[in-house]
Amino acid sequence: MASLRTTLRGLGVSRRAVFLRGITSNTCRAFSTGLSPPSKGFVYEQHGPPDQVLRMVELPPVPVKENDVCVKMLAAPINPSDINRIEGVYPIRPQVPAVGGSEGVGEVHAVGSAVKSLSVGDRVIACPTTFGTWQTYVVKEESVWHKVSKNVPIEYAATVTVNPMTALRMMEDFVELNPGDAIVQNGSSSMVGQCIVQLARIRGVQSINLIRERPGSEELKEKLKKLGANEVFTENQLEIKNVKSLLNNIQEPALGFNCVGGNAASLVQKFLRQGGTMVTYGGMAKKPITVSTSSFIFKDLSLRGFWLQKWMNTEKAQDCRAMADQLLSFVEQGELKYEMELVPFIEFDTALNYALGKSGSRPKQVLTF
Amino acid sequence: MASLRTTLRGLGVSRRAVFLRGITSNTCRAFSTGLSPPSKGFVYEQHGPPDQVLRMVELPPVPVKENDVCVKMLAAPINPSDINRIEGVYPIRPQVPAVGGSEGVGEVHAVGSAVKSLSVGDRVIACPTTFGTWQTYVVKEESVWHKVSKNVPIEYAATVTVNPMTALRMMEDFVELNPGDAIVQNGSSSMVGQCIVQLARIRGVQSINLIRERPGSEELKEKLKKLGANEVFTENQLEIKNVKSLLNNIQEPALGFNCVGGNAASLVQKFLRQGGTMVTYGGMAKKPITVSTSSFIFKDLSLRGFWLQKWMNTEKAQDCRAMADQLLSFVEQGELKYEMELVPFIEFDTALNYALGKSGSRPKQVLTF
Repeated sequence: MASLRTTLRGLGVSRRAVFLRGITSNTCRAFSTGLSPPSKGFVYEQHGPPDQVLRMVELPPVPVKENDVCVKMLAAPINPSDINRIEGVYPIRPQVPAVGGSEGVGEVHAVGSAVKSLSVGDRVIACPTTFGTWQTYVVKEESVWHKVSKNVPIEYAATVTVNPMTALRMMEDFVELNPGDAIVQNGSSSMVGQCIVQLARIRGVQSINLIRERPGSEELKEKLKKLGANEVFTENQLEIKNVKSLLNNIQEPALGFNCVGGNAASLVQKFLRQGGTMVTYGGMAKKPITVSTSSFIFKDLSLRGFWLQKWMNTEKAQDCRAMADQLLSFVEQGELKYEMELVPFIEFDTALNYALGKSGSRPKQVLTF
Repeated sequence: MASLRTTLRGLGVSRRAVFLRGITSNTCRAFSTGLSPPSKGFVYEQHGPPDQVLRMVELPPVPVKENDVCVKMLAAPINPSDINRIEGVYPIRPQVPAVGGSEGVGEVHAVGSAVKSLSVGDRVIACPTTFGTWQTYVVKEESVWHKVSKNVPIEYAATVTVNPMTALRMMEDFVELNPGDAIVQNGSSSMVGQCIVQLARIRGVQSINLIRERPGSEELKEKLKKLGANEVFTENQLEIKNVKSLLNNIQEPALGFNCVGGNAASLVQKFLRQGGTMVTYGGMAKKPITVSTSSFIFKDLSLRGFWLQKWMNTEKAQDCRAMADQLLSFVEQGELKYEMELVPFIEFDTALNYALGKSGSRPKQVLTF
């Protein structure tokens, strides 16, 4: 793979821009049917803090081979896993140098001669996720792309494959939930959290939702309740011995989700019923999970973890396109929504800083091209 | 149920001895076929520290009804769960006043007129466990008792139903182990720990065993190795980054057992392979279990608990007699052994103090009658 060599100026952005050859996953093959347009992408040559190692790069045209599809990107989010990949702390990550980003939506710009399922103008998402979506044109094999409806707002198509899918899988894969059952979660205002609230509501499952105490938490409670949350508590409200006394007509939950750690994870355990399961999928507080011996022995709790990336590497991942379709149809029907902030691609720095939490908590940052 | 009323002196023991009516689980019924001999038992009227609330009591004869079997006890252990029941901190416990103890072996002294499966002179164990084995004569329904071979030393028959059975179930119920696989455990010198070492050896499963650093730990290592332990480490030896570098030709374990908590539980997790399961069945260090977020997400660990008492209340408990037979046949064949200290019933105080850890770590205390 070529290394970054040539510095260019004058891209209208403040970053150092460089030409880069061979940065996409496509190396030259025999039967190219044309070239992609030149592309602009956010590239890192080495692992480190994203605001230090990412650079806007002009990427030269690459061959669109017979099985390839060239997609003009429309929108791509900045996910925590993208940040962690750039930092080098995520177990599955591309080799450097690499273009950032892993999910997104675009429009088919050109197709290779052997491509059958997609045509120019189709709207497509990378499903399962792929690497390198933070660029204006992405060339990948036909099999990477999944056609989606144009009736769905691009920011939802751009974001369906990571967070909503995590929520959907976690609702399915650990405990059989029936209407009237309940779940409990912390970090409920996260994008996965918002999806869990709504997927629960759609299934007739009740949700108990924990959020941090912070300015605006009353408004956040109302927002989550509008999405279908049955109960929303700030963690401070739960500094009592018997949290379950707060549940009115809600069943003790059999399933809990933890994306915070520390005390917030202990609170989820407190709500769980005998024999319940807590699934950890994030660690926003950067604190470990603590469990009492009696929670395991007498309360028979199970503690598990979920990682979508690993799921995507199993045979079950063949379901992911049907899952994306289902989730996007919920969006189309107005049954599933979540907060996002759309930021033009050329204002990447702003979106990145928001995604890095430099201005406190912000909704999901979605780059638009 | 009658309360303790009358104080008697002169039983040859230092404790206050009292008559107690109706303390066994057998209340008067219509068709008694005789009376048991008077019995002596260790009784608690209220929950509290066992060395303060237990009293030697003379129990009057009780009816041996048509379905009852009167057993002259031969041996009964003092288990941690017995201590916790007396303290009132164990979730499943008899109503007070109660005779202590929950497992043991005896000889059939008399049978009710409808008893078919047992005869005077048979050696029997309470299987599943029952309450009130710390007394010289126990009258319980026929269905409580399970006939065992007289070729097995009484101390093994007396102790097979709690600790070895915990070890056996935990080896069966969580992860499918095949010859060549490995397990890891802490608290390896406990009675369950010794059984796990040997049940692993019998199945061709390798065992990695952690023990506390303390005087005599080198001798303990040798003892465990003689039982079949493949590796034994003191916790201090494992204060290195990559504990797995210590494993020679042993597979990364898929299953771990924790009866300690705190750092010793973290060490078990460190040894486990991707996707491994840690089962907690005790908390000797009285410290919680701590788990990193990444252990759940990226390493995909599952954390579970095991409680034999709960298992005994499921339909699976019908297997427990076959399990006891299997375990006792291992004992008979010399394949299963563990350390115990036999103490005459009249020296109950001594055994209790040892069981309470007042003289440091001691082998399992088994009362002999």
